[in-house]
Amino acid sequence: MYTARLQELAGDLLGAGASIWPVFNGTGANVVALQAMSPRWGSVICADTAHINTDECGAPEKLAGLKLVPVATDDGKLTPAMVDAAATGFGDEHRAQPLVVSLTQATERGTVYTPEEIEAICLLAHTRGMTVHMDGSRIANAAAFLGVTVRDLTYATGVDVLSLGGTKNGLLDGDAVAVLNPAAAPGLEFVRKLSGQLTSKMRFASAQLLAMWGTDLWLRSAEHANAMAARLAAGMGALEGITLTQPVESNAVFARLRPKVADRLRKHFGFHDWDTATGEVRWMCAFDTTTAHVDAFIEAAATELGR
Amino acid sequence: MYTARLQELAGDLLGAGASIWPVFNGTGANVVALQAMSPRWGSVICADTAHINTDECGAPEKLAGLKLVPVATDDGKLTPAMVDAAATGFGDEHRAQPLVVSLTQATERGTVYTPEEIEAICLLAHTRGMTVHMDGSRIANAAAFLGVTVRDLTYATGVDVLSLGGTKNGLLDGDAVAVLNPAAAPGLEFVRKLSGQLTSKMRFASAQLLAMWGTDLWLRSAEHANAMAARLAAGMGALEGITLTQPVESNAVFARLRPKVADRLRKHFGFHDWDTATGEVRWMCAFDTTTAHVDAFIEAAATELGR
Amino acid sequence: MYTARLQELAGDLLGAGASIWPVFNGTGANVVALQAMSPRWGSVICADTAHINTDECGAPEKLAGLKLVPVATDDGKLTPAMVDAAATGFGDEHRAQPLVVSLTQATERGTVYTPEEIEAICLLAHTRGMTVHMDGSRIANAAAFLGVTVRDLTYATGVDVLSLGGTKNGLLDGDAVAVLNPAAAPGLEFVRKLSGQLTSKMRFASAQLLAMWGTDLWLRSAEHANAMAARLAAGMGALEGITLTQPVESNAVFARLRPKVADRLRKHFGFHDWDTATGEVRWMCAFDTTTAHVDAFIEAAATELGR
Amino acid sequence: MYTARLQELAGDLLGAGASIWPVFNGTGANVVALQAMSPRWGSVICADTAHINTDECGAPEKLAGLKLVPVATDDGKLTPAMVDAAATGFGDEHRAQPLVVSLTQATERGTVYTPEEIEAICLLAHTRGMTVHMDGSRIANAAAFLGVTVRDLTYATGVDVLSLGGTKNGLLDGDAVAVLNPAAAPGLEFVRKLSGQLTSKMRFASAQLLAMWGTDLWLRSAEHANAMAARLAAGMGALEGITLTQPVESNAVFARLRPKVADRLRKHFGFHDWDTATGEVRWMCAFDTTTAHVDAFIEAAATELGR
Repeated sequence: MYTARLQELAGDLLGAGASIWPVFNGTGANVVALQAMSPRWGSVICADTAHINTDECGAPEKLAGLKLVPVATDDGKLTPAMVDAAATGFGDEHRAQPLVVSLTQATERGTVYTPEEIEAICLLAHTRGMTVHMDGSRIANAAAFLGVTVRDLTYATGVDVLSLGGTKNGLLDGDAVAVLNPAAAPGLEFVRKLSGQLTSKMRFASAQLLAMWGTDLWLRSAEHANAMAARLAAGMGALEGITLTQPVESNAVFARLRPKVADRLRKHFGFHDWDTATGEVRWMCAFDTTTAHVDAFIEAAATELGR
Repeated sequence: MYTARLQELAGDLLGAGASIWPVFNGTGANVVALQAMSPRWGSVICADTAHINTDECGAPEKLAGLKLVPVATDDGKLTPAMVDAAATGFGDEHRAQPLVVSLTQATERGTVYTPEEIEAICLLAHTRGMTVHMDGSRIANAAAFLGVTVRDLTYATGVDVLSLGGTKNGLLDGDAVAVLNPAAAPGLEFVRKLSGQLTSKMRFASAQLLAMWGTDLWLRSAEHANAMAARLAAGMGALEGITLTQPVESNAVFARLRPKVADRLRKHFGFHDWDTATGEVRWMCAFDTTTAHVDAFIEAAATELGR
Repeated sequence: MYTARLQELAGDLLGAGASIWPVFNGTGANVVALQAMSPRWGSVICADTAHINTDECGAPEKLAGLKLVPVATDDGKLTPAMVDAAATGFGDEHRAQPLVVSLTQATERGTVYTPEEIEAICLLAHTRGMTVHMDGSRIANAAAFLGVTVRDLTYATGVDVLSLGGTKNGLLDGDAVAVLNPAAAPGLEFVRKLSGQLTSKMRFASAQLLAMWGTDLWLRSAEHANAMAARLAAGMGALEGITLTQPVESNAVFARLRPKVADRLRKHFGFHDWDTATGEVRWMCAFDTTTAHVDAFIEAAATELGR
Repeated sequence: MYTARLQELAGDLLGAGASIWPVFNGTGANVVALQAMSPRWGSVICADTAHINTDECGAPEKLAGLKLVPVATDDGKLTPAMVDAAATGFGDEHRAQPLVVSLTQATERGTVYTPEEIEAICLLAHTRGMTVHMDGSRIANAAAFLGVTVRDLTYATGVDVLSLGGTKNGLLDGDAVAVLNPAAAPGLEFVRKLSGQLTSKMRFASAQLLAMWGTDLWLRSAEHANAMAARLAAGMGALEGITLTQPVESNAVFARLRPKVADRLRKHFGFHDWDTATGEVRWMCAFDTTTAHVDAFIEAAATELGR
């Protein structure tokens, strides 16, 4: 029943003919989606910062034999020109064929693609015989920032298959593959099972996805996380000794500060280095980040910087 | 905290030095375990009825390049002689090297291995340079039937790595890889992640496993399921036109009856054909099967047979 | 030029629209063919004695993620009934989908399929939505024995893709994938390259294949090897203490004799055990086996048996 | 006998304890070597121009699940600093572990690593727990240019495993994996077979490798190819409208010229675009390139430029 309702939701949320296939996590969603979208000889163009390229322990290559073609970017966003330059070798048997473009929304750099930007990439990709995947692990944050719907960012722009996030926006566990263009993902039900991503108790996965995407919970949670990031950026950006390094368009704040200061802060507040060579760090806010926590963090930074 | 407690539990439940690695489901547990246990050139000896061979859409081969060497059995159980006969070609570069034996406990035929039987296989395997994996998706049912502990069936018998069940015995979702012999599963943490089986919210997985394996819940649930199977077998076995085809040693009942009768019953009670050629079917009982449901099923069968 | 001529030959040798794709060896031909024929979720039904199942160190599983469904046979030959029984689970996402049948001609047991037998399997396979691969590593021996053409055994019977042997019948190296039904092997040129089976000096491969398959060299070589096997079988079969265990229909002779005798013979004549449990051995004859060598082998056996 | 002699040669050519494993081609050598060197969770740092990254249709990823970490370079050469920056995430389960560095000698840009440069990279790699692979498809050209031995470039500098070229320097077919550090490539014999790279007639492969590497044929052929490239570079570099874009250190010449001119030249002389965006092309010379052919090419270019 939950699973049937999830499929009704798919049409409403995403567009006519769309379907939602629950999986366990973001890596699962990406690997299942890209595998169904790619023949054995395909490659996937993505930003070199993409989660599939950096944070999945090689799952796309190791589970599915996908070849990634990582492209360097400033802000985590691909452009039509970048895709065009990377999409070479069609018909040359020596080259893995670039048949899929994977966009991350919001990107790993905290930036977002506008609907127009996505549409331009989809147009180019389709013209050249490629399909478009979106890693929407944080698509809620992107939609909330832009004031648009998930449909505006996907179905309406030409995205073929979406990894629809859930975990990062508050679910216990569970993400999904959302198919917008069924012709782009043949055999998806088999690929999900052979990838170890089919749960035998689908109703628990479906119920969670319904609770988030069938109400405005996705939006409220994402708006909150984004607001916390904005607050954090405002506070931190005002401190001498901290430089914000990316526009804050979702729930991530990137900044540069002296490594010693970062290390002292880290004793009480958990965060990751982004680039140890430049002293850049990444601060993530979530659906459950509190104003008090943000303010305490800013205050601690001010104290450490003032030592 | 839950995850730390789960590791304490591992030692108590399984033996000194054991560790428990939560994953999402049984396929995940099996593929992660076997992958960590096998070099690229390894093969895995298993019963031809094994879940890894029949019910995972080829996940072991497709995700991990594992070669399975399926062995025909009457009752789903391997014997030392069968393993010995299948373990050939050591050192021959033309042959995938048989380096792992995978046992299912309870088997897909509802039968169980005694500790002595497991120990004999482990002894043979280790003598010949192989390690032993146990698919314990229903190990609770086996332990309950035998009146022994999980440790008696694994650590004490020489099993190296265990797929520790959870979902089939009542969890929302979640199984685990339990490593009894750390030397047998190098790189497990990486293999779990690259297989898409690492959850970012580990505490929810750990809490479920603790609730089941840190109390006697596993035993109560399994005993109940087994009792329901015994009741079902007793009732069905007494009916003319139904022949039980396997000993009932866990929560499964295998029986042969006329296909027409099976089909009419199936309108109200869901179950699978086991072998359409012989008219054999499989009836599974679970932690939540009720006496009333069992009795209604027997009554319905009696009615259909009497038509 | 050689490569262009090879494609002309393909049409003549095999049938209109056929094409020949040189690869390095038999494993390469099989893995490239089966990979092009199978989606990621496919399985391949084959005899359990098939070379792909026993002698390729797991290459089909390890390189291409293919799941093999091995079927026990007496004589290495599949029948329509065997294929029918193994081809289950269509549409069930828990099962790798049986989409290819692989026949070996001549079989690993030295037996051959008649054109009628092949046609019956192809008919069944196609009716059930499967395609048919033939491992023709020794197809020359089969054709020679039956007095038919390679086309009679493949194109005319409905085989979709053939591994066309060369090395075992005398080439320096080199086999090929022959595509009879282009729709059955999409992306073959890419699969060949990504499988490491594309040579950069194609003319040397093509020239060898032309020398064999563009003349009657294939037939003369195979007839000779078959004749040597027949001579060997006649001589050995007449000795007390040796029992032939398979009909001799190509260049292989299977026999049972006391292991001690076999071991003494092996000091001077190289051959493999087939089944150490039963004392069965396999003797292979080749394009370059001489009458003198056969006779010396028979005489040595007579001597050893008489001790 | 040839194969035994090849192993004797291995020690002389490369160093004590070295072994040579014939395979069919360069892709085969690279995939076999890297697969034996990498656990399932490994990644391979390489230049983004590396043959394994661009010209093998994704074979490393697709056959072996290897993750490549391509690094941008000016001249095709990695530096210790580049390797150091790319080798991150050790011990982090979210990251494929960078355990192998792959160098190409001579590089795809026609440049060569000096022994000192190789040694520095090996030192860094070994210090950080990585091993070093060298794609020596054109190592003869590099050694000839530098006036050193293959041993100077590999065994003496700390390279662990080498893809030893043959085809590009004149063999009919055939390259090899040369293992300098046996501990770095466990299971190589199985990996070669499961990768479809074991020939059943090893003597023909061994004989070719002996003919090249057991005499000074490798050196004469490479010196000739290099001399032709130098002649070509001198002639072309003197023409107005052509700019050489890389130092000529082996048998490749890189140049920039107007696309229209390149296209007209291509009607009579085959060569590839390197970068269509910049108008850069690559001209390769070989063991069998003649002075007359080089001169005719230069003359044709002069004519086309003068139109």
